[in-house]
Amino acid sequence: MTEARRRRIEEVLRRRQPDLTVLLENVHKPHNLSAILRSCDAVGVLEAHAVNPTGGVPTFNETSGGSHKWVYLRVHSDIQTAIGHLRELGFRIYATALWEDAQDFREVDYTGPTALLLGAEKWGVSEEALALADGAIQVPMFGMVQSLNVSVAAAVILFEAQRQRLKAGLYEKPRLDPELYQKVLEDWLRK
Amino acid sequence: MTEARRRRIEEVLRRRQPDLTVLLENVHKPHNLSAILRSCDAVGVLEAHAVNPTGGVPTFNETSGGSHKWVYLRVHSDIQTAIGHLRELGFRIYATALWEDAQDFREVDYTGPTALLLGAEKWGVSEEALALADGAIQVPMFGMVQSLNVSVAAAVILFEAQRQRLKAGLYEKPRLDPELYQKVLEDWLRK
Ligand SMILES: C[S@@+](CC[C@H](N)C(=O)[O-])C[C@H]1O[C@@H](n2cnc3c(N)ncnc32)[C@H](O)[C@@H]1O
Ligand SMILES: C[S@@+](CC[C@H](N)C(=O)[O-])C[C@H]1O[C@@H](n2cnc3c(N)ncnc32)[C@H](O)[C@@H]1O
Repeated sequence: MTEARRRRIEEVLRRRQPDLTVLLENVHKPHNLSAILRSCDAVGVLEAHAVNPTGGVPTFNETSGGSHKWVYLRVHSDIQTAIGHLRELGFRIYATALWEDAQDFREVDYTGPTALLLGAEKWGVSEEALALADGAIQVPMFGMVQSLNVSVAAAVILFEAQRQRLKAGLYEKPRLDPELYQKVLEDWLRK
Repeated sequence: MTEARRRRIEEVLRRRQPDLTVLLENVHKPHNLSAILRSCDAVGVLEAHAVNPTGGVPTFNETSGGSHKWVYLRVHSDIQTAIGHLRELGFRIYATALWEDAQDFREVDYTGPTALLLGAEKWGVSEEALALADGAIQVPMFGMVQSLNVSVAAAVILFEAQRQRLKAGLYEKPRLDPELYQKVLEDWLRK
C-alpha cells in the first residue's frame, strides 16, 4: 500500500453517498450487472442491492469485475425483504418503468435518500415491486424501440442524481458517519 | 401495415435529429453496440457511424437487435475517412476521453451539429482520433474504477444532448428536409 493509494482511497471514501443506491430485481446478465456497479462506483454509491442477481444460482459469483470490489452488493432473498430493508433505512424507492404515467426522471429530487429500482432485461420491474415502490420514473424515449438497456437506464438516472448532488454540495464533505467511515476504510485498505 | 403503425413511424421520424450522431471507433462487443444503438434511437439519432465495429470481420453482421433496424449504421474504412465525412457534413466532433483536461460534458452545447466519438472497451479513443477531434469531453467520476462502460458513457452524454434539445424545441418540428424525410419514411414503411 503506497501513500498515494491510501490518499486515493480516502478521497473516494470522502465522496461516497450512503443515501444513494440501486435495487436490482432479477438483473441477470453479468455485463449489465458489471456496467451498473461501475456507474454506481462513479457516482458514489456505497452499497448496491439486488434480488436474485444470478438468475437462481444460489452462490453469488464474481461477475462484475473491478467495480464489484468497491461497491458492496447486498443480496436479499426476495423483493419485499429488499424494499422493507431500504424503507427502514429511510430510502424513497423509485421504480423505473416504461409506464405512461411514470414521472419524467428529470423532475425528481435525488438529493434525499434515494433507491432506484431496476427491472429484469426481459420483464422489467415486477408488478409486486411497482406496487411497493414510492413512485415510478422514466427516461423519455423518442424512438421506435420500447426500452433502454437496463444499465443505460440506471446510468442516465444515476448521473442526474450526481448532477443534483454536485450542485447541492453533497460531494464536498464526508457523508459517512465516522464509525462507518473507519470500518469501510479498513476494509478497503485490505483490498 | 396498420394505420396506427404508420402514425407511430411518422411521429418518430418527425423527431429524428439528423445533426446528432455517434462515431464508434473499434467498439466490438455486440451488447455494447446494441445498447448504444438503442440509446441513439431513443434520443433521435438518424444515422450512427462506426469504424471496425466487428473487430475485423469484414461483413457487418446483425448483432444489434431491433435498434439497428431504426438507426442506420454507416461503417467507414478508417477513422480519418469517418471524421472527414462528418466534418464535411458540418459536425463538431467531440472525443470522449478520460483525460484530465477533457471538458466536463455538462458544459458543452449539443444543440448544434454534434458527433460523439467513443472508443474501444480496452484502449479507448485512439491518439490519432483524439488529435483529429474538435474537443474532448468527459463524464465526471468520483470512484475507484477508471472508466465507465462505453455504452453507459455514450448514453449519459446522449441524454444530456436530449435534455438540451428538448429545451431548445428541436423535437417539436421535423428536422429532416422534405426529400430525406420522404426517402427514410419509404424505407421505414417497408420494415
Ligand atoms: C429492457 S428494460 C425491460 C423492458 C420490459 N419489456 C418492460 O416492459 O419493462 C429493463 C429495465 O431497464 C429499465 N429501463 C429501460 N428503459 C427505461 C426507461 N426509458 N425509463 C426508465 N427505466 C428504463 C427499467 O428498470 C427496466 O425494468
Ligand atoms: C472502457 S472505456 C476505455 C478505457 C481505456 N482504458 C481508456 O483509458 O480510455 C471505453 C470508452 O468509453 C468512453 N468512456 C468511458 N468512461 C468515460 C468517461 N468518464 N467520460 C467520457 N467517456 C468515457 C470513452 O469513449 C472510452 O473510449
